[in-house]
Amino acid sequence: MANHPDPHFAPEVFSAHSEFGANELTIGGCSAIGLAKEFGTPLFVLDELDFRERALAWKSALESSFGSHAGSVFYAAKSFISVEVAKWIAEIGVGIDVCSAGELNIALAANFPVDRIEVHGNNKSEAEIAQAIAVGVRSIVVDSFQEIERVARLAAAAGVTQNVFLRLTAGIEAHTHEFISTAHEDVKFGFSIASGSAWKAIEAVEEATSLRLLGLHSHIGSQIFGIEGFAIAASRLIDLLAKYRDHFDRQLPELDLGGGYGIAYLPGEESEVPMRVMSELAAVVKAECEKHNLQVPHISIEPGRAIVGPTTTTLYEVGTTKSVELDGGLTRRYIAVDGGMSDNIRPALYGAQYYALLANRISSRPTTSSRVVGKHCETGDIVIREIELPEDIGPGDLLAVPATGAYHRSMASNYNALPRPAVIAVKNGKARLILRRETQDDLLRLDVVEPERSI
Amino acid sequence: MANHPDPHFAPEVFSAHSEFGANELTIGGCSAIGLAKEFGTPLFVLDELDFRERALAWKSALESSFGSHAGSVFYAAKSFISVEVAKWIAEIGVGIDVCSAGELNIALAANFPVDRIEVHGNNKSEAEIAQAIAVGVRSIVVDSFQEIERVARLAAAAGVTQNVFLRLTAGIEAHTHEFISTAHEDVKFGFSIASGSAWKAIEAVEEATSLRLLGLHSHIGSQIFGIEGFAIAASRLIDLLAKYRDHFDRQLPELDLGGGYGIAYLPGEESEVPMRVMSELAAVVKAECEKHNLQVPHISIEPGRAIVGPTTTTLYEVGTTKSVELDGGLTRRYIAVDGGMSDNIRPALYGAQYYALLANRISSRPTTSSRVVGKHCETGDIVIREIELPEDIGPGDLLAVPATGAYHRSMASNYNALPRPAVIAVKNGKARLILRRETQDDLLRLDVVEPERSI
Repeated sequence: MANHPDPHFAPEVFSAHSEFGANELTIGGCSAIGLAKEFGTPLFVLDELDFRERALAWKSALESSFGSHAGSVFYAAKSFISVEVAKWIAEIGVGIDVCSAGELNIALAANFPVDRIEVHGNNKSEAEIAQAIAVGVRSIVVDSFQEIERVARLAAAAGVTQNVFLRLTAGIEAHTHEFISTAHEDVKFGFSIASGSAWKAIEAVEEATSLRLLGLHSHIGSQIFGIEGFAIAASRLIDLLAKYRDHFDRQLPELDLGGGYGIAYLPGEESEVPMRVMSELAAVVKAECEKHNLQVPHISIEPGRAIVGPTTTTLYEVGTTKSVELDGGLTRRYIAVDGGMSDNIRPALYGAQYYALLANRISSRPTTSSRVVGKHCETGDIVIREIELPEDIGPGDLLAVPATGAYHRSMASNYNALPRPAVIAVKNGKARLILRRETQDDLLRLDVVEPERSI
Repeated sequence: MANHPDPHFAPEVFSAHSEFGANELTIGGCSAIGLAKEFGTPLFVLDELDFRERALAWKSALESSFGSHAGSVFYAAKSFISVEVAKWIAEIGVGIDVCSAGELNIALAANFPVDRIEVHGNNKSEAEIAQAIAVGVRSIVVDSFQEIERVARLAAAAGVTQNVFLRLTAGIEAHTHEFISTAHEDVKFGFSIASGSAWKAIEAVEEATSLRLLGLHSHIGSQIFGIEGFAIAASRLIDLLAKYRDHFDRQLPELDLGGGYGIAYLPGEESEVPMRVMSELAAVVKAECEKHNLQVPHISIEPGRAIVGPTTTTLYEVGTTKSVELDGGLTRRYIAVDGGMSDNIRPALYGAQYYALLANRISSRPTTSSRVVGKHCETGDIVIREIELPEDIGPGDLLAVPATGAYHRSMASNYNALPRPAVIAVKNGKARLILRRETQDDLLRLDVVEPERSI
């Protein structure tokens, strides 16, 4: 078992195969110092076995909880996707949820089985819809009346019957341990059940001969703990399944309850446990179906963050430190790393909180009130607003920030013309580059000198 | 003069050479419809003459207000930079402020005169410092004690005496019409005057024989209107110049007062007027210097947003629309465009507000409460939270969002694997691509298959 001599190492927030050995953090058996030396910093270190285990855990939990009624786990590509990661997902036997031509093309570049691809998006272009139909994706999750017409028309033109879901808003918005239940949701996505839009959309799809309605979809939020919000949404969707059965005299075969399962970002937190969530959800779904005398439909889910989020740790090198006197006689220690808001926009964007660990050594010094900041020319470029860190952390030290797998590299920018960091997969003491670091040449590749055109 | 038959066209928030002609928006004499057809959407349309005029206006205002005491305008590259834009800045005769190797390399690729380059950053790497010294930049703005040692050591190793500024915090934080004056600033940048750090930094630079202290620097905030904050900061810096003169028996030749001048984002707002700001600031600086019997130093400024922000308009194509019933019987119309938070993160990041104009036709229909959203799979992907727009805006229409020159393309991401939009320069009815649109191939260029390495 893991040996954790550093009192600051919090295993619950690092990827499963992270340990603090004699003197440094190791991830997937690879030394943090060695990784930084070999691949440079900032560096996204993805614990491959942890990724595979988490994807499998959701698949197993879905299948064992729902039995023959289990649909698919669709990995939400928006959280993080690369060709290599798409190959893992394909091997594990889960599906993928893409929401742009770009995400679809990454899946296709990995030879991802098209019959496990689900296409999302509130504003798919006609080109994106046509491509999805042409390659034969499993389903398109339709989001608006205009899109019903478009998918129907483009499927007809391609001579196919396209499987679709309808994205519905069930009046539930969830985040962390709270959820709001309203009649109407003020969001850009989907068809509202309460307003009657959802039913009209069902009728419109039924009338389109080139569309086959597979089922209903809802997605209630992100970073959610507990199943209460999911339970209410499921109940409202199942009410609609019953209405559908009563009206059309047959059942829709599937229900997609979306993603949003929460993960641990800070010590003391716990990521949602797939078996607990799925078994509780299965009990609700079965009871609701029984109430309406419905067969339990195939249930699919779309975890993204819950699979990739905890698997990745960002390694930064510390460049400068300074102590700033605050009004009131307090002092704050600023620790500046070699990345920042270009590789992790979430603190600035959502006020997200992170943990950091001195990764290259154990300090026996006391901790002090610290702020981890990046190297961008912006005051708001903060990685961690407030954290107790050993007072001797200084230039050349490595800081490891865990739980940076979801919405970090995928939302990364070139702000201040910083190259985006590499992503490496680590496993059993070996490391492989899967997304290379951008170079200075990459930053200049879009600059062009072209003749003027009269417009 | 411009003809504005569309009552929704608000010239104060569009670039100077924008007009609403008979039936559509034109920018730099180019038809919005023609630009969208030729270059696709989303598209950043940069009004080149407006850019040049604004850069020149700040230069002229600085020079006419400070006379022989005028230093340089340093364009803040972080707001937006490309090789072509760096060439314009070079031609106009202003300097450039860069804060990374990436920004420096873009300037160098444009053959930007190195003696007009100023290097910023709270955590410059040794490689960045060494490169700046090697190419012979005009000055390095030093931010920490560690950096004083590094620049001194690397300059000595290169056999040069490096001109430096010291970045100071003067206890002023300013934003829009408000500013806070405190003893201490809780920020990552610079040396605090109040704590004595600033003076110690001056002494450390004076002791380093490979450094020459050109002057003091402060930057008080962003999107600032009025000079009150600048005046207090200038006064505190000038106090320190006097202390320096008293102690070292000579004067520091320069003062850099940073940037942060506000621009108009919404109809009815007005961008800061360079002559007004510079003449008021000159009066303050001269009075403060007189008080201390100091010669007025050379004064430099660093506008970024104030030059490029108003010059650029984003053209989007509308893809889907829907009306959502809200609790309380109200309705909101959602208008989804083909970009979003990947090309404009500022609404999500700062709660920034924008205007949008139907660009391809005049609608005679009434307006309705609308929300302009993007195509990302995220509820927070909102371009404009609340705006009155003609109720008949629909798929295929073009929306023009003005004042998107600063911190838009420079902070753009590939979130949801969306290619980043092109930037085109328009002038006198002609358009030129200056940053090409990313392709699907670009999105896959960083995916690599490499052998494992033992770490």
